[in-house]
Amino acid sequence: VEVPLSPGEPPVTVAVDCAGADMGPGEVAAGAAIAAREDGVSSILFGPRAEVEAGIADGGGAPDGLIEVIDAPVSIAKSAEPASAVRQTPDASVVQAARAVADGKAQAFVSGGSTGAALAAGTMIIRRDQGIHRPALAMPLPRPNTGGMPVTLLDVGANTEVRPEYLVQFAFMGAALAGLIGVENPRVALLSNGSEADRGTPGVREAHAALTERAIGQDTLRFVGSLEGTDLLTGVADVFITDGFTGNIALKVTEGVSQFLLKTIRDVAGSDLRSKAGGLLLKPGLVALRDDIDPERYGGAYMLGLRALGVVPHGRFSRVGFGNAVRVAARGAESNVVAQIHSSLASAGALRQPRAAAAATDPGDTVTDAP
Amino acid sequence: VEVPLSPGEPPVTVAVDCAGADMGPGEVAAGAAIAAREDGVSSILFGPRAEVEAGIADGGGAPDGLIEVIDAPVSIAKSAEPASAVRQTPDASVVQAARAVADGKAQAFVSGGSTGAALAAGTMIIRRDQGIHRPALAMPLPRPNTGGMPVTLLDVGANTEVRPEYLVQFAFMGAALAGLIGVENPRVALLSNGSEADRGTPGVREAHAALTERAIGQDTLRFVGSLEGTDLLTGVADVFITDGFTGNIALKVTEGVSQFLLKTIRDVAGSDLRSKAGGLLLKPGLVALRDDIDPERYGGAYMLGLRALGVVPHGRFSRVGFGNAVRVAARGAESNVVAQIHSSLASAGALRQPRAAAAATDPGDTVTDAP
Repeated sequence: VEVPLSPGEPPVTVAVDCAGADMGPGEVAAGAAIAAREDGVSSILFGPRAEVEAGIADGGGAPDGLIEVIDAPVSIAKSAEPASAVRQTPDASVVQAARAVADGKAQAFVSGGSTGAALAAGTMIIRRDQGIHRPALAMPLPRPNTGGMPVTLLDVGANTEVRPEYLVQFAFMGAALAGLIGVENPRVALLSNGSEADRGTPGVREAHAALTERAIGQDTLRFVGSLEGTDLLTGVADVFITDGFTGNIALKVTEGVSQFLLKTIRDVAGSDLRSKAGGLLLKPGLVALRDDIDPERYGGAYMLGLRALGVVPHGRFSRVGFGNAVRVAARGAESNVVAQIHSSLASAGALRQPRAAAAATDPGDTVTDAP
Repeated sequence: VEVPLSPGEPPVTVAVDCAGADMGPGEVAAGAAIAAREDGVSSILFGPRAEVEAGIADGGGAPDGLIEVIDAPVSIAKSAEPASAVRQTPDASVVQAARAVADGKAQAFVSGGSTGAALAAGTMIIRRDQGIHRPALAMPLPRPNTGGMPVTLLDVGANTEVRPEYLVQFAFMGAALAGLIGVENPRVALLSNGSEADRGTPGVREAHAALTERAIGQDTLRFVGSLEGTDLLTGVADVFITDGFTGNIALKVTEGVSQFLLKTIRDVAGSDLRSKAGGLLLKPGLVALRDDIDPERYGGAYMLGLRALGVVPHGRFSRVGFGNAVRVAARGAESNVVAQIHSSLASAGALRQPRAAAAATDPGDTVTDAP
């Protein structure tokens, strides 16, 4: 972590929507306080003032001047129609936080609320970066026994249907995020139902061909081809690209199978006296494993393709996860990951054509409540 | 298992392609011998005669007259272009086995070879049942702590792209298979990126509406709506329906995450003396868990939608898995699962329209090597 900034660099501030966390806005604020105290991260917190201020104090307080609190008691985190809610609720905390980024008061965005509201506010208010077809949600998955190196899966739900050119952009976006969270020279794979170039849907096959062509002679993208679901956690690739429908299911299956197996093993370890003794002896190792694969480690899901980096921690996170989200958001703004993505797409010739030329084939932004 | 047959019922014979198993054709033959001896299953084995006969003997032999061996030394199990190989190799063991079913010499089909070759031979030679849009590959996944009740996922790879009406048929096909392997009154879910009816791709949403409508007042289908990947193993549904691209990835992610976590826990249990002692004490429980989730338990993947039931055990299976495949294939032929599927689709009004009416929208069978 390179915060605090070197002299001469512009100051970086993170706009934080404190709504939507299972433990309340104070828990998000406590995370921001930790990021401020430990790494000097500056932030503006949007939420009900009393709870947010109590959360900062509960998180150990923050150095003077690093955290600003804006009283924003209206939350749309539980809305079933987040896009309409964003349009109709200008004073909602998530809308105000996104607005602070759009207005240049902050350079990155964190929303502890719902993914739907964060994505709608990000797309409608912060807006897509120039030349980007669609924003994507990327999820870094911690893997055990790797010294902390995650695998990043995208899209995990922003776009249920994609065109091949979206997948090509997701590859560059995912590589940039992997770099930001510490993976050097990340290997990017297409998630498919076989490793051969002729497997997958027509769109996947087309993206495979386009990425193969673009990766040749590029030092910005290390494309390793198509890989199957069995390879997701084995470490043969650092980034997996797919549409938001398949990516969401792959992510949820990973979470479901992990939780189910760990629970089953806990049940085994409680089944009789002999197993109980074994479970006790194994406990330190299993606790270390659980910490290794802690979903709070990388701060949550990342919104890529907007004019600023967005992070969406899971509502069930503790202050540790919210703090990590604020920290990585600041680091991303500092290293200007948005400009990195833009320039790598430009040198690969993968930016979207200007609207006049593309109007016939690209319907442009449509944010609806049923993605 | 209800084999041997009651008097008066027609005799059931399983055509078994012995090619493609990692341990060789003898291992498949050994499985058929076990099914013959323990359950009286009659079969015709296609493979190199000497190896097949040695396998039968090695599997403990079979009662007189139950197993016929046809010398078929040509294998296309390793072909990279299975559809072309099926067309060009009439003497291949998988082609001869499928032909025996098409000719009425056998009533079910097992191929220990490649899924691609089995699917191509099944579709081209046994052929789709009347009114079926597309055959599907279904995989019963064993779940621990359920008394052996699996969850069945389909399609796991026969169709990378589907239309909503295919998904509707898959629901009825999957329910019939779940019944065959012991699940009473199976609950069927659509795999999606959310449980609301408006989530998913347009095709998933259309299938959701069609299944909701068809399930009302039906005792042939118990549709429980859309479910997320986290629910795959939790037991809230017995059958999950999806397209073959997503299904293949969900299956492979499940396998990959399970293997990876079990390996990681084995590593933890070998990391130091204390953990080693714990691992030893836990071992009986963990072995029981591994047996519970043994992929050989249900015989492999099932080809549904053809004029006869097909089973494709994994090439790495032992005789136990091959024996289970032959056993369930016989049971399916006996209980006429194909007719069950047909009549449940007929009463739900979900059969494909006759070809003349449907010609404009349905391209019919196209079997290619790049699904």
